[in-house]
Formats: sequence, C-alpha cells, structure tokens
Amino acid sequence: MAQRKEIIGVIGGSQVEKALYALAQEIGRGIAGRGAILITGGMGGVMEAASQGAKEAGGLVIGVLPGSDAAEANPWVDVPIVTGMSHARNTIIARTAQALIAVDGSYGTLSEIAFALIFSKPVIGLQTWEIDPRIHRVKDAKHAVELAFALLKS
Amino acid sequence: MAQRKEIIGVIGGSQVEKALYALAQEIGRGIAGRGAILITGGMGGVMEAASQGAKEAGGLVIGVLPGSDAAEANPWVDVPIVTGMSHARNTIIARTAQALIAVDGSYGTLSEIAFALIFSKPVIGLQTWEIDPRIHRVKDAKHAVELAFALLKS
Amino acid sequence: MAQRKEIIGVIGGSQVEKALYALAQEIGRGIAGRGAILITGGMGGVMEAASQGAKEAGGLVIGVLPGSDAAEANPWVDVPIVTGMSHARNTIIARTAQALIAVDGSYGTLSEIAFALIFSKPVIGLQTWEIDPRIHRVKDAKHAVELAFALLKS
Amino acid sequence: MAQRKEIIGVIGGSQVEKALYALAQEIGRGIAGRGAILITGGMGGVMEAASQGAKEAGGLVIGVLPGSDAAEANPWVDVPIVTGMSHARNTIIARTAQALIAVDGSYGTLSEIAFALIFSKPVIGLQTWEIDPRIHRVKDAKHAVELAFALLKS
Repeated sequence: MAQRKEIIGVIGGSQVEKALYALAQEIGRGIAGRGAILITGGMGGVMEAASQGAKEAGGLVIGVLPGSDAAEANPWVDVPIVTGMSHARNTIIARTAQALIAVDGSYGTLSEIAFALIFSKPVIGLQTWEIDPRIHRVKDAKHAVELAFALLKS
Repeated sequence: MAQRKEIIGVIGGSQVEKALYALAQEIGRGIAGRGAILITGGMGGVMEAASQGAKEAGGLVIGVLPGSDAAEANPWVDVPIVTGMSHARNTIIARTAQALIAVDGSYGTLSEIAFALIFSKPVIGLQTWEIDPRIHRVKDAKHAVELAFALLKS
Repeated sequence: MAQRKEIIGVIGGSQVEKALYALAQEIGRGIAGRGAILITGGMGGVMEAASQGAKEAGGLVIGVLPGSDAAEANPWVDVPIVTGMSHARNTIIARTAQALIAVDGSYGTLSEIAFALIFSKPVIGLQTWEIDPRIHRVKDAKHAVELAFALLKS
Repeated sequence: MAQRKEIIGVIGGSQVEKALYALAQEIGRGIAGRGAILITGGMGGVMEAASQGAKEAGGLVIGVLPGSDAAEANPWVDVPIVTGMSHARNTIIARTAQALIAVDGSYGTLSEIAFALIFSKPVIGLQTWEIDPRIHRVKDAKHAVELAFALLKS
C-alpha cells in the first residue's frame, strides 16, 4: 500500500485583487507540483486561486464548504466537502492540513490561523495577519511552498 | 474543465463480521469501478471494507473522521478529513454524498440515514435499519451500486 | 455551593397538531414543576409547546438553535444558544440533556434519538419512532416526566 | 411575556494568574449585577473567574463546553452545554453572546475574537490581543462591563 499524500492548506480572503490571486495561484501550482493534495475553504478569492493553480498542475483539490450546497464550490474543486456548519468548518481545514499557507485574508483567515496554532500546525504567511512570531513570514510563492513542505507536520 | 466526479457514501458499523465485510468491499469496488469517489466515516468495519474495495478498483477514498488525529483513518483512506467534532461529523457525510449505501450498522448509521433523508439524498439499504419506506432495500452489492448511480442526487 | 439543576430534553417535530401540542406543553410543565431545566431545539411545534409549558411552571428554558439568529427562537426560550451549525446541533441537545422525551417527530427527531442512544441517555417516547427496545414507551405526559426523572443520567 | 435577558460573553485563557482572575471575577459580578446572563466556554481560568463572579451576584451562568462530559464544567456553571465539538464550540460562544469581553487569552481566545468580529459583535478587550481597531480597549472591569452593555447587539 502506497503512502498517503501530504495535505497542505491555503487560507485567505474570499475576495482578492489580481496580484494576490496570481500569488495564490502560484502557491497552488507549487503544492500540486510537488505531489501534495490541496485543501481550502472551497470558495472564491484566495481559495479559488490556489485551487486553480493546483488543478493546472494536475493536483487534487479538496474544498471544505461552509454552506449546504456543493454548487457553491469554486470550479476548481474536485471534492466539495459539504459541512453546513458555517464558520465552524474553519477548524476542519486547520485540523486536516499538515501545514497552512495564509495569503491576505480577514477575520475568517485569522480564526484559521488561530486554530492552526492551537493544533501546532506550521503556518506560513504572505501579506497576512502579523500577530504571532510562530507565523513564518515569506515574500513569495516559491518560498512559501518550500517552507510548507520543509515544516510539514506528519 | 472536466466535470466533477460523483461522490457516493457507504455507511455502516465500525465492527462487522466477515460476510458483511466482503459485501461492503464489493460495494466499494463497484463505486470506484464506475468512476465515483467514495466517502465514508474513515474508521473500521464497513467503512474500512468499502475503502479497501474502492482502492482495489483504483478509486479515490475520502474518510471524514470523528476524532482529531489523521492516524485514526483506516489504511485505505486517501484523504482523511479530520473534524474533531465526534458524531457531528455524521451530518457532513450525509451532506457530501450524492447517494448513500447503508450496510448493517447501529445508532451512528441510523443518525446518518436520518440526515440523508432530511437532505433528500437517496439511501440504499442492505441488512440495515428498516425504519422508512424511503430506504431502498436491495439484496446484494451489485444492485446497491446500480441503484445508487441510478438515483444520484446532482 | 448548591447542586446543579437537572436538564431534561424534549424533542419532536417543528410542526405539530393541537393534541400533541397540549401533550408536549404538559410535559414541559411537569419538567419545570419538578425543578429541572428544559432543553429543546428552540424552534416551533413540540419544541415550542414544551417551552411554553415550562415557562408557565416558572422554569428555565434553553433553546439550541440550528440557525444563526437568536430571533428564530420560539417566544418561550429564555436562553437561545445560537449554533449556526444546522442539524449538527442535534448532537448538542442529546449530549446536554440527562434524559430525553420524544414526542412525535420526523427525521430530525430520529437523529436526536440515535445520538441519545449512542450517548447512553434514557429516551422516553410518546407517539414517536418505534425503532428500538431501548426507547421507553409511555402513554401520557405524567408518566413520561416521571420516568425521565427516574432514569436521569447523572 | 417578559423580555429576554441580555447575554454577555467573557472569553480568555483557561489558566490565569491571580490579578487577572480577580479582574475577570469582577467582570462576571458586573454582568450579573446588571441583570444579564453570562456565557463562557465553561472551563477554568478566566472562564471560571467570570462564572464565580456572576454566581456571587446571583446571576445565571451558561458554559459551552468543548468536551463530552458535563463534569468538566467549572463549579460555577449553572447550565453546561455539552458540545463534544472541541474548538468548533468557539463559534457558538461568539454567536450567542450579544457582546464579548476578552481578558488575556491565547489562540482559542483569538479565534473567538475573530468569530465575534465576523458576526459584528462588540468586543471589549483587557490585556488581550491587540490585533484590530474594532476591539474596544479598556483598563478595568467597571469600564468593560459598562461598555459591553452600551454596545450590546440586539
């Protein structure tokens, strides 16, 4: 039996400007390019950008949706996990990912960072909340992906 | 962009005798053989049997775990979704699957059947709870899988 | 420090005919009359009837709401617990109550009965699902309340 | 029918030094003294201190527990709400409270602040996370309570 693939989360705002969309897309591409599964909240913005990037690189994309309808998922999600639990689903993303990369984001992202730190998951941050020395700050997508794989929690 | 694959759930007891293990395994094989993704609660018994079958047929297996540790997943799970929400995760399985096949099972399975009926998902039953005319009763794995695909909720 | 009051749950359909409304109301009155706290799903039908009865007897009423707005609670709820988790809140009612009385009800009630049995909570049933010998069947409100207090899980 | 009482949340670390315990206790006393219900996460530290204060002032204390056992609640909790959902219960506290007072606290408190801001609930902070201008910073218990009542979200 083959080993399980790694799972990396990308978290961030559901609305995002062009430059950050491209950045998150590159991160998704990097995650899939190195053979890991991508998990996000399944909606728009950073989540969609990373999903698109991962699909372009032939990866598998899991989207953990807050609502009760799989059709809410962005078009790049392979497996919409339909929770119907609203923001409580943020804990699931933080628990399932073995490392998380945060790009931009507002209070939802902040809650996911908080949960990731509670669960002792590595968090890499790009232009996001500067609240804690445990968030590894990087400057570009390449370093974000490299660091996520280097710090992966088994 | 390719269409999303269908997702079919298999629910049932976490401990199961040999004959039912073989039955659930055959169901998993049938689901993957027809190209759908399998979702289960990720633990032992019926969940493990269906997962093993799906992997044998080259499929993708999602396991929505009640606990907080991915290592709890049975060895055939490709993507352990770690909820940390105990039995509340049963709603997620019922919401995510487009049809559910119940094999044997106790009160946890009963709760999943109840949620599936609330969400108007088709439920196919084999040697399981006989509580409602909306549960489609079948006698073997082949018919269970055929009916699940015939009734899939988009 | 005084001992904590007992907590008893009443579960059942969100729409209910007159005779069952009166029955659930009498159950709520009996629970509060004996000094226990009532917990329900906070919505209409059986939940509202029991809440009204408990308030008439001077009791305290907790309503564990599925939605995200306290205003959804029926008017007899003292403390609306706002979960925003839809049907996943059913597990909370079954976990919090030390005994549950089921009146009528559909699949939501069925899921709550299932969870109560998983958590080894006593379940008393009136004109509800006949699925398991562990559900104590009674004929009137008086016996339902008496049995709930006799079987209370500490 | 009388109007529902207000519900105010106190959030903060499960372990806390003496001076902060006294501060949270005074906040609990102030909340109950003004006739509101106190809601906390039901555990130790700031949660326990506020609960003790509220009980001393004759108030009602709700504790929304992460675990599956009511016995985990601190001794001042009147109504232990047993979620069994671990940190996902943080969303319930933020949804149920009409205003929240944060005292000290670590990542769990941070997640609750994040959810409170998502749900547009007023947040008053004492020696806690300084992450957002929307957190109203005060210096003592008296002002925290006054501000919470002044800003209550109906």
